[in-house]
Amino acid sequence: MSIKRYKKESLNSYSLGITLTIEAIKRKGNFMNKVYLNPSYEKGESFEEIKKLCKENNIDIEINSKVFNVLSDKDNCYVIGEFQKFYTQLEKGCHVVLVNPSNMGNLGTILRSCLGFNITNIAIISPACDVFDPKVIRASMGAIFNLNIKYYDSFYDYQNEFKENALYPFMLQSSKSIHNIIFKDNFSLIFGNEATGLDKSYLGIGENVIIPHSKKIDSLNLPIAVSIALFEATKNSFK
Amino acid sequence: MSIKRYKKESLNSYSLGITLTIEAIKRKGNFMNKVYLNPSYEKGESFEEIKKLCKENNIDIEINSKVFNVLSDKDNCYVIGEFQKFYTQLEKGCHVVLVNPSNMGNLGTILRSCLGFNITNIAIISPACDVFDPKVIRASMGAIFNLNIKYYDSFYDYQNEFKENALYPFMLQSSKSIHNIIFKDNFSLIFGNEATGLDKSYLGIGENVIIPHSKKIDSLNLPIAVSIALFEATKNSFK
Repeated sequence: MSIKRYKKESLNSYSLGITLTIEAIKRKGNFMNKVYLNPSYEKGESFEEIKKLCKENNIDIEINSKVFNVLSDKDNCYVIGEFQKFYTQLEKGCHVVLVNPSNMGNLGTILRSCLGFNITNIAIISPACDVFDPKVIRASMGAIFNLNIKYYDSFYDYQNEFKENALYPFMLQSSKSIHNIIFKDNFSLIFGNEATGLDKSYLGIGENVIIPHSKKIDSLNLPIAVSIALFEATKNSFK
Repeated sequence: MSIKRYKKESLNSYSLGITLTIEAIKRKGNFMNKVYLNPSYEKGESFEEIKKLCKENNIDIEINSKVFNVLSDKDNCYVIGEFQKFYTQLEKGCHVVLVNPSNMGNLGTILRSCLGFNITNIAIISPACDVFDPKVIRASMGAIFNLNIKYYDSFYDYQNEFKENALYPFMLQSSKSIHNIIFKDNFSLIFGNEATGLDKSYLGIGENVIIPHSKKIDSLNLPIAVSIALFEATKNSFK
């Protein structure tokens, strides 16, 4: 079977790199189809770890240079994992809700922060970029393999499933500073698209919040805003 | 004179895009050599603003398509500003100190957050990536034109110039949580390289700090860590 560039419609996706592939096998070994090695990969400690993990999980290893030409734009990529895309349900608890995120690097960075602050259930409201794109997976540094992520057609659909959650839409139009908010469990931290933010209708939902910043910038970068909100909302678990 | 790709040695750099170029002229008009317009630029409101700003600042406008082929990898770039690189001294006050930052996108994002939390003096310890690279300028969303940024050959040189500052190295090896720190004015928030962090010698400098996170990730992304530190250290100004 010939290897093709990743598309949203593909049933499989790829972990590009050694560390990412090791994380993928450890967390989602059942979903890993095959591991490709670059012929120029120097076999050391990490090779032994991959070999052992593949054996334990009955995963084939194939030495193949073409795959790397097709899938990776970096010269120093030596290992690629091909895995079946997996779909998860959200658990009850605290959530991050991303409404129409459009930048793949940002989405990956946000997932890494979510895992860093132990918020492991993430709702994404469509339209949105594809969490299984190898660019998102790489930016997440493997966090994606440890999270429950579910797409919803509308915010209403999400809200309907988790009626009991306390909703906190983060908006530049809000007048309530994050410094004065006591986040109730279970909270849902809600963020809009990079360019447009959340629309005005979210002012009527739950308790809207702003992260105050100087007037010299238009807004904080989205992953920065999400991470600051996570840091503040989870601080009692990390004191 | 033919236009060449930006190099670290160049005397000039470039603002790629309309918003960025407007910000560059507003803040550093004296340093702007020339503004290039893409022949396919549709002249609307932003064109009138650029024309007005260029007139006020005696800046030539040139319609030129080649420049865009050489300097921009995006199809939708319609305005490029060419400016002389400017060098600034740091003022007394609160600082961010970046030791050997290596990723240009990260550096730009950090500068945007610094401006967002009104920390306008940034020390960079060499070796480090070049703050005038158009990639940094773009990621900063123009923040670079509002900041004082100075390179130092060593941390010692920086420390020697600002002996009175309270030093806070952010390190994974620290046992002091940011949640228990009261930041003294004037503070210097110090961060290491993306891959390696600060070396052990910084444990002996000032009051080291950690941003606690789950064990499921190795570390927070650098711009995220810097921004959380800025958020926490400046919170009394933003309540």
